[in-house]
Formats: sequence, structure tokens, C-alpha cells
Amino acid sequence: MNNEFDWIQSVSPKKLHQPSVKVGIGDDAAIYSVHSEFDQVVAVDTMVEGIHFTRKTMPIKSIGYKALAVNLSDLAAMGAIPLYYLVSVAVPKQGWTQEELSKMYEGMDQLACKWQVDLIGGDTVSIRDTLVLTVTVIGKVKRDRHLLRSQAEEGDVLFVTGEVGLSAYALEHLLNDESPRVDQSSFARFLKAHQEPEPQLEAGQLLAKGDGRVSLNDVSDGLAHEAKEIAEASGVNIVIDWDSLLIPQEFNTHPIEKQEDWMLYGGEDFQLVGTVSAHYWNELVLRFKEHHLLLHKIGRVEKGEGTVFMKRHGTRSIIEKSGYHHF
Amino acid sequence: MNNEFDWIQSVSPKKLHQPSVKVGIGDDAAIYSVHSEFDQVVAVDTMVEGIHFTRKTMPIKSIGYKALAVNLSDLAAMGAIPLYYLVSVAVPKQGWTQEELSKMYEGMDQLACKWQVDLIGGDTVSIRDTLVLTVTVIGKVKRDRHLLRSQAEEGDVLFVTGEVGLSAYALEHLLNDESPRVDQSSFARFLKAHQEPEPQLEAGQLLAKGDGRVSLNDVSDGLAHEAKEIAEASGVNIVIDWDSLLIPQEFNTHPIEKQEDWMLYGGEDFQLVGTVSAHYWNELVLRFKEHHLLLHKIGRVEKGEGTVFMKRHGTRSIIEKSGYHHF
Repeated sequence: MNNEFDWIQSVSPKKLHQPSVKVGIGDDAAIYSVHSEFDQVVAVDTMVEGIHFTRKTMPIKSIGYKALAVNLSDLAAMGAIPLYYLVSVAVPKQGWTQEELSKMYEGMDQLACKWQVDLIGGDTVSIRDTLVLTVTVIGKVKRDRHLLRSQAEEGDVLFVTGEVGLSAYALEHLLNDESPRVDQSSFARFLKAHQEPEPQLEAGQLLAKGDGRVSLNDVSDGLAHEAKEIAEASGVNIVIDWDSLLIPQEFNTHPIEKQEDWMLYGGEDFQLVGTVSAHYWNELVLRFKEHHLLLHKIGRVEKGEGTVFMKRHGTRSIIEKSGYHHF
Repeated sequence: MNNEFDWIQSVSPKKLHQPSVKVGIGDDAAIYSVHSEFDQVVAVDTMVEGIHFTRKTMPIKSIGYKALAVNLSDLAAMGAIPLYYLVSVAVPKQGWTQEELSKMYEGMDQLACKWQVDLIGGDTVSIRDTLVLTVTVIGKVKRDRHLLRSQAEEGDVLFVTGEVGLSAYALEHLLNDESPRVDQSSFARFLKAHQEPEPQLEAGQLLAKGDGRVSLNDVSDGLAHEAKEIAEASGVNIVIDWDSLLIPQEFNTHPIEKQEDWMLYGGEDFQLVGTVSAHYWNELVLRFKEHHLLLHKIGRVEKGEGTVFMKRHGTRSIIEKSGYHHF
């Protein structure tokens, strides 16, 4: 890249949202101040061209948006408030223009502005063939307020914060060149779920409010996979009630196996899935209603050792983790 | 990769050094506690196969070691105490065995243990061709104690914490297959400088002690480049005195142009370069002596607008940034 320095300047934020940032981009490392009444929360995720996206499945701006979104989703799953992010990008020597890279950063910036998250550092390096985008996010959560996947208990309500399967449905249509054939106005929300998913930060923060026990995951690898993670980490069984799931009406004309593929194994939905005690459930539902957010019961937690069942029309079957496979 | 979960388990630390870690690897994000008397310091760096290293120039264990070292060096350049790191690795579908990856993590672990830094998170993804290794490090520094490159002032002493040019000398010999021809016992320290550089954390922390003004960089892109960065960020001129530089005796048989290439433009030395007031200088030298560390004067800061000069045998020439070019 020519003028790497100038380019980095051009994507560096002109104004910061967080007054805690003392040194941002431009020195060897970034510096920010902290308060000991909060714990710090950090996550990192990498998106690779040809594995997690292609130019066919993602507009360039969405690649940036999604790379930040999947990281913010990890913070949402801890009930955290996001504060800062760092971006390391390996840029192929050919095939990506500086304008395209800037568009990718615009996508990140759009989401960052919404959540008042500041870009405070990064690295820009060369690579031979494919773009690799790694985002690190840092946030905070009230001290000792931890929403872990290991905290589910027998008798808990299993919930999700929204519909699942939308991203997988969109991806399948994009890969099979079927997107022109579907109703565009209805397809838009599926496309959005795949290309520019909304990290459920508000829901995560609502769940972190108060001090009721909450177990929580984000649905990055499919509902089955995430439920299995909670079940195994907590040493319980989980029953997903198929008839309770919110099934998009567009799925109705497809065979049940397809619906299962999208909704149980689809992945990349970035809704939150978790459990709370039946006692705490009603309080939470009210809190979510007040904030016009969805909290939807889809099953329950039973005594057990890490098995996930699906119940449909009164019949139970064991479902496996086998989650999401990238193309 | 088969058994990704098992493999991640195998490289996850069994024991943590920092009691502040509340949630490490195994949930959506890591959580750690903080004290408000410290600021947090964070940096990220990426190493790409075929760009920053090849199997010819680096043993696999050293790839891991160096990826963490270059990040710790960024913290050293802020005078920070490192605490945690996260590793995101994109692994080619072919060409890397699980054993080799584990070796790479061993290299990181070796350095991490030395500095009591904990691996608290990461991501493992696939890529088509080349390995990409991104490390994020987080540390702390006393509140408002910032060693920035913008803090040099007219009259300052310019210093380095050790020899420069060793890494470039080693790399050139490795790339030209000349390493068998050099004296192996003498070549070992050059090889070490290139493959497993020591981040100058102790020196950085000594510089952060007390409250004297310090401007500081790590020599990742060559002495000329780093001096230029300090000069430009501070709005001063810098004069490097060639005759003050510690020149390895192995360099003596090579033409002066070669010596300059290695020492001024070589890069990846990961020594620290910086400036302090002449008044503060003597105090610092004593402090470094007490700790058996080198602090070596190599020039001075003058009034100016960002120019770097080299003085040799009484003659001055302007030197440019043009630092280090990866192969």
C-alpha cells in the first residue's frame, strides 16, 4: 500500500466518544483509564476472506460492520458495555484498493458510532492472497457481575432474544444465486441478519442489570451448539421446545429438515441464548417489555449431564452440537 | 482441524499468573478486575507467513515467541507492565500439523511465563494458504505516566537500551543461506535477536519509574524510522552520532553502507529508543546501572521541525525514515 501512514490517518477517528481514552492511535500502544467498580471484558475474532465471507456474499462495507458486530456480540453475551476496539488487517498485495479498505473501515465506524465505541489501535500488514480482519473489543461490566455459560441450573427457563436461522437462510440463497428469485422486500431482513447483524448489547446489559443468576451465550455457531455449550459447562440437560421457536413464515414452505438446518445449526444469528430461574423469569420479561425488547421462552433446563433434547409435538430427540460449518 | 475444542484445551494455560483474571479462555469473552490507580495499555500486532517469517527463517516455536515478543515490546515502549494476551490464529487447511501449532503456542507460553502474562482468550479459524497470527496484549502503567513519542524536547539526550542491527544482520544471512558460513558461536546472538528478541520490559518500566519526562519508541522499524517518528511527533530535530553507536565487531569487516543498512534501517531489534532531559539523564544512568541494564547515549535533540541527522566524523547528513522493508 502506498502512503500507509496517510491511509491510517484517514481511517483514524477524528473525535473520540469515550473520555477515558488517554492515548489512541499513533503511539506504540493505546492507553485508557479505568474504574475499579467495573471489571474489564475483552474478546477477539477473526474473519477470513474465502472462509467467513466472499465478495459474492458480502458488500465490502458489511465486511467491516460484521467483523465488529461479531465481537460486540461476544461482549453482549457477557452483559458488557463496549468501549474500545482495535483492528488488525492483513491486506493482499493485489485485489483490494485503498478505497475498498476505507469502505470496510466505514462499516466498522458506522456500528462503532451507534455504540459509542472508539477505535484506539491496530496493525496493517501485507499478505499474499486473502484478506484477514481481526478485531479486538474491550468493554466493562459491573464488578463481579458475570453471565457465564456455566451458570445454568435445573428448573431454569431457556430463552432467546429473537429469531434464529435468518443468517443461514440468507447465506444459502446467496450461495445458490437464489436471492434474485425471492421476494426482495421480505428477503431484506434475512440479508441484514447475515451481512450486518445487530449485536444484542442492550439485551445483554438488561440481563446484567440486577443480580439474578443468568447463564448466557451468543448464537454464533447455531442454537444447538450454544445450548450444548451451556448444558456441558453447567452439567445440566437442556430441552428446546420446537413448537415455541419463532419460525419465520418464509420457512413454512420448506421441508422441516431445512428449517432445522437453519434454526438449530445455522449459526451467525448473534441473538443471545441463556437461562434464568423460573422465579426470576417474570421480572426479566417485564424489564424487557419496558425496553421494547424480545425475550422469548424456548425451553427448559433439566437435571442431567450435558445433553440437549429437541421436543416436537410431544416427542423428544437428542440433538448434537454439530453446529455451523463455514463454506 | 480435528478436535478443535480438544486442541484449544491443550494450549489453554493450566494455571494463571494474575489473580485479577476472573474468566479466562472458555466463555464468550475474558473478564479481569482493575485498579483505578493504573491506566490500561493495549496493543495488537499481526505476523503473516511469507511476509514476516518463513519456515526457512524461523523455527516454529520462535514464530510464537516472536509474535508475543513484538507485542510485549509495544508495551515496553509505554513503560507498561504486561498482564494478559489473546491469540487469534488463521490456520491453513494444509501444511500445518496440530503438533506444529502446539509448538508455536509453546513459544508464546515460554515468553509469557517469563513475564507472568496470562493467555485469556483468542480465536482459531481456517484460511486457504498462509498462517496469520495476531496477538493482542494488555498491560498497565501508573495512572497518567505516559512515555510518548511526542514528548522529546530541545536539549534532550537521545538513548538506546542496547545494540541495533543484529536482527537484520541475521535475517540477511538466513535469506542468503550464508548462516552456515559464519562462526556459529558468534552468530547465535544475532540469530536470537532475529528469532526470539527480548522485549525490553524491564528497561521500559525503569523509564516509567519516577516522573521525569521521557519520550520513547521501540525499534521495530529501524533506528532511523523510530528517531524520525519521535522527531516528527515532537516537532524537534534529532542528531544520531554514528561514532557513539555500539557497533558489533562482526560488522567491522563489512562496508559502511552495509553497517548503516543493518543499524539504521534494519528494524526488528526491539530495543527502546528515546529521549530525556540532560538533567534527568544522570539519574537514569545510575538507575539502569543498579539494575545491570544498558542505557546508551547515541545523540541529542535540537530545535527543529522533524529532521533526523546522522553525524559521522564531524559531518552531518540528513537521514530518511525509509526503515525496514519486509521480504
